[in-house]
Amino acid sequence: MNEFDLIEKYFNWENSSSSVLGVGDDCALIEIDNKQQIATSVDTLIEGVHFPKDTSASDIAHKALAVNLSDLAAMGATPKYFTLALTLPKFDASWLLSFSKSLKTLADKYGIVLVGGDTTKGSLSITINVTGTISKSKALLRSTAQVDDHIFVSNTVGDAALAWRQIQKNITPSEQLLQRFNMPNPQVELGRALVEVANACIDISDGLEQDLMHILKKSDVGASIHLSDIPLSEEVQSYIQQSQDWCVALAGGDDYELCFSVPVENLEKLKEIEKKLGIKLSRIGLITQDKGIERLGKFNKKCSSYKHF
Amino acid sequence: MNEFDLIEKYFNWENSSSSVLGVGDDCALIEIDNKQQIATSVDTLIEGVHFPKDTSASDIAHKALAVNLSDLAAMGATPKYFTLALTLPKFDASWLLSFSKSLKTLADKYGIVLVGGDTTKGSLSITINVTGTISKSKALLRSTAQVDDHIFVSNTVGDAALAWRQIQKNITPSEQLLQRFNMPNPQVELGRALVEVANACIDISDGLEQDLMHILKKSDVGASIHLSDIPLSEEVQSYIQQSQDWCVALAGGDDYELCFSVPVENLEKLKEIEKKLGIKLSRIGLITQDKGIERLGKFNKKCSSYKHF
Repeated sequence: MNEFDLIEKYFNWENSSSSVLGVGDDCALIEIDNKQQIATSVDTLIEGVHFPKDTSASDIAHKALAVNLSDLAAMGATPKYFTLALTLPKFDASWLLSFSKSLKTLADKYGIVLVGGDTTKGSLSITINVTGTISKSKALLRSTAQVDDHIFVSNTVGDAALAWRQIQKNITPSEQLLQRFNMPNPQVELGRALVEVANACIDISDGLEQDLMHILKKSDVGASIHLSDIPLSEEVQSYIQQSQDWCVALAGGDDYELCFSVPVENLEKLKEIEKKLGIKLSRIGLITQDKGIERLGKFNKKCSSYKHF
Repeated sequence: MNEFDLIEKYFNWENSSSSVLGVGDDCALIEIDNKQQIATSVDTLIEGVHFPKDTSASDIAHKALAVNLSDLAAMGATPKYFTLALTLPKFDASWLLSFSKSLKTLADKYGIVLVGGDTTKGSLSITINVTGTISKSKALLRSTAQVDDHIFVSNTVGDAALAWRQIQKNITPSEQLLQRFNMPNPQVELGRALVEVANACIDISDGLEQDLMHILKKSDVGASIHLSDIPLSEEVQSYIQQSQDWCVALAGGDDYELCFSVPVENLEKLKEIEKKLGIKLSRIGLITQDKGIERLGKFNKKCSSYKHF
């Protein structure tokens, strides 16, 4: 049973409150007044599961906050505040100093404030709960992709996954790949810019196809994607050329880029966003009526995604 | 270094935002519009630290949510929604079913909605982040106790701590003590009723004296308390008579009762609350100008509170 099935089965209680969009999107949405909604999301990072044992305190802090900011980005929300639940095996002043400094650097960059926390003793684990705001009914959802929308991905995918594969094989990844793996860059500005431009959006944390599939299922549509249009860094491109292992790009998680669908009439607006933010946005395919994902290109293997249970 | 020092030292960043009361009270307070504030708090429970290894899934779920609701209660806030980060050593359907059912029962009782979550694999640990609302500037703080306020405690203290001591000595506690330890009852209604009646309030999670001390330090005042006025259940009373170990009541945590200070002019209102809610509220002492806690009664030993590090 994977994480999504588990949440769906055991914790998807029917909400008595109509003002709440619960479990099942990047963030939950809660109405707070006539104008605004709150977007909130929680993610836990565990040593040895979400980051290798020798990851620096600074990288851990960055990643723990970045993956949560990425969920706000995927909804188009503006980051406001977060809480931190930190479980530590022992008290280590220099570790804490480095963790705190890195966390504050990223928090300041996106104007998000640490408002509360809890520290406990145990195996190293970090749970962050981020909260942002968004104008009422403007949030980017997974459930609103439309047939004929163009599907886009920001920057490149597969870099973090390639780094992780190399680490597991005791190969030291390049500086650039390590950076993508340890210091992911949440696409907060892009997410906000996509409000009223994209029809649906998700962040790529579990892998391009798996995350795109969430959009497709929630929107009751399908997609066809061109392998040759998937944006790859030079390193990932050359790795795939040698290995023919497209799964690194299709199923490798941890990129924290955005995957989103845009109606034809907004493609001009999207070009402006691309220019204004100086970000690469690649069209990888189309939303279709036929369910599932149709891959166009020479790779038919099924990629396996990471499952916790 | 205890938990409070750790948070104070490493995570008490100066907030650039004036609309936020950060680390240092039962909840953080965030302004959301002209009328309301959001109160939010996070607590982690770890197996073997916050509950014994053989605790039932049902009791764990109850306690994990109850301790967080207790923080909302201590601010006088109305519970609205919560997120759940659940780390499990393995997938166990019957455990999850029982956990989920118990969580929903308590959530429904207080009208709080589960809006999001994350499940990961690792040592059993539960992090819940609760959020409530409160009218602007009405929250019950730790920092606003006034000299000559009367200090009150709800129900009885020491029951959970006595149960824990017995468990550690392989004595099976009575049904009643176990209930207090495993199924604490967050004082949500009392907290809400105390708004505009109490000057300061805290929940007793770490022990009466230690928690009262948080009020005293934040309010820059002291207190004198009468040992004989501390409300005790029959079991705790007879344990103290035999052992002379007042620490079970003064420093034993996990009661999740409220400790609060009330100005003389509101004592009549407090009586009405006591009657209306059918709850026992005991006056245990006075807020004084002299710093620290003066104990009136025959017990001078220093009690040690639990420290994580």
